[in-house]
Amino acid sequence: MTEICVGIDIGGTNSVFGLVDKHGKIHAKGTLPTANYEVAEEFVKAISIEIKKALSPDMKLLAVGVGAPNGNFFKGTIEFAPNLKWKGVIPLAKYFEENLKVKALLTNDANAATIGEMIFGNAIGLNDFLFITLGTGLGSGIVANGELIYGHDSFAGEVGHVIVKENGRLCGCGRRGCLETYCSAPGIVKTYRELINNENLEISAKDIFDLAKSGNEKAIEAFKITGEILGLALANSVVYTAPEKIFLFGGLAQSGELLFRPTRESFEANVLKIWQNKIQIVPSGLDESDAAILGSASLVWKINQKYRSQI
Amino acid sequence: MTEICVGIDIGGTNSVFGLVDKHGKIHAKGTLPTANYEVAEEFVKAISIEIKKALSPDMKLLAVGVGAPNGNFFKGTIEFAPNLKWKGVIPLAKYFEENLKVKALLTNDANAATIGEMIFGNAIGLNDFLFITLGTGLGSGIVANGELIYGHDSFAGEVGHVIVKENGRLCGCGRRGCLETYCSAPGIVKTYRELINNENLEISAKDIFDLAKSGNEKAIEAFKITGEILGLALANSVVYTAPEKIFLFGGLAQSGELLFRPTRESFEANVLKIWQNKIQIVPSGLDESDAAILGSASLVWKINQKYRSQI
Repeated sequence: MTEICVGIDIGGTNSVFGLVDKHGKIHAKGTLPTANYEVAEEFVKAISIEIKKALSPDMKLLAVGVGAPNGNFFKGTIEFAPNLKWKGVIPLAKYFEENLKVKALLTNDANAATIGEMIFGNAIGLNDFLFITLGTGLGSGIVANGELIYGHDSFAGEVGHVIVKENGRLCGCGRRGCLETYCSAPGIVKTYRELINNENLEISAKDIFDLAKSGNEKAIEAFKITGEILGLALANSVVYTAPEKIFLFGGLAQSGELLFRPTRESFEANVLKIWQNKIQIVPSGLDESDAAILGSASLVWKINQKYRSQI
Repeated sequence: MTEICVGIDIGGTNSVFGLVDKHGKIHAKGTLPTANYEVAEEFVKAISIEIKKALSPDMKLLAVGVGAPNGNFFKGTIEFAPNLKWKGVIPLAKYFEENLKVKALLTNDANAATIGEMIFGNAIGLNDFLFITLGTGLGSGIVANGELIYGHDSFAGEVGHVIVKENGRLCGCGRRGCLETYCSAPGIVKTYRELINNENLEISAKDIFDLAKSGNEKAIEAFKITGEILGLALANSVVYTAPEKIFLFGGLAQSGELLFRPTRESFEANVLKIWQNKIQIVPSGLDESDAAILGSASLVWKINQKYRSQI
């Protein structure tokens, strides 16, 4: 019998699941169109049927791990997620437990990916690290003393909402100057548009990456500015938990040295002396396409690992 | 037999010790002039003799807790403390163990006070809180998941060195714009001097407090500016660990509403919506005069408590 945890990543358009063993091997995968389900219970029912179909007789289902926007780990709920049709507070973990008859854990997507890095990625064995996802927003997870920090309400790790510029860019959260308005895919697009004085140019972060690769100076400058802001923010971030490493994940982090070099330079120029040349800023070890599934499944494998180490 | 932990606070001029029971009662106290001892080993020998004298026959010494500048919890050492005569890396915990024949734990003073708040102060039962000392500098300790965060190198919790102003005031750390250059006793003095356009005025934070109390507008303004900067910095700080409460301790924190009101107003104006009106900024419950001893002793009582809960 192979012990299996299901990792499920809830997205606004599609949700994916994978059957993951303790080594991080994905035995089967599936996708369901989240947006087609007006009611969360019906969605869970449908995806649970798919999961049962995917399980083979030599597999033993241990538990379910769910990564979801605005996921509350303590309550197993999704709370007021702007990108989902399901409004209010949704007890998604409970629905999964009812359908699959095993324990279900749920957290937000960045936290799930953080634990994924710890269990299956480049943070194996690290007790103190910072995990940053650079995508449509800036998500983060913080591990200290070997544990993910949830805070008193399960909403810790909102590094994207550190205010880095007084009266800066308007953020989706309603405030101004949040880090994610600069250091994210839309953030670098805005920076590039400002550099070329064309507010309405249709361009993506990937386009800017391609331009920079081909030597375009304004595109390279956009990466430099993004890295400078990120590096200073990371220098300010390490004072809280003194992480050993900082992992960058997500589309923008795949830009390689174009982003990493200015980020590291700004970090070293701004960090407190005791940490100069000591804290590494490195790429995530998670494969972009499987990270969401592995992250969600690892939520369970982490607990399982801890439990096993105690017996 | 009363079980006793010795709490020792190492200061640049004087060091104090107290015999503390598990309820936080101090049974005896003593002081030794740190600055008189050129060699750390001789100092430890001398203070250990005083401690032994203070112990009565009905007391059982369990362990020693030491709060010291630049204290490294993992190694039990004081490392390059600028305000002490003892240079380099000093294995102070080891010296205490040799002299008193019990386990000795050591950490920096702000961390010791943080654990003091948790064991004997207003943070009893809280798993997630932030502790800020506003004195000659801005020290801090962070508790998450019920544990003090030390980070990978024992130097976590340097909130005083978050850069809050680009090209701001010169800090003792060699950089510019650190929070503690604004929010500390010397910080408010500098702010007041700027407000009255007199850079060289001889005045203390306590004098500014007295002026503000008597209605002096510039002094009140100095507190307002200090609180505004502190409130924004705290709003940015809570994104990391989502604390339930923030405790303010130290001389400047004793200014009451003069400091707390603008701090809370700025915090609420700047904090992410999910935490508005949810995180309390409150005074420490530790008595200023005994906090150092209680904090250092609590370092041991905390471990003891955890150990006892496991058996």
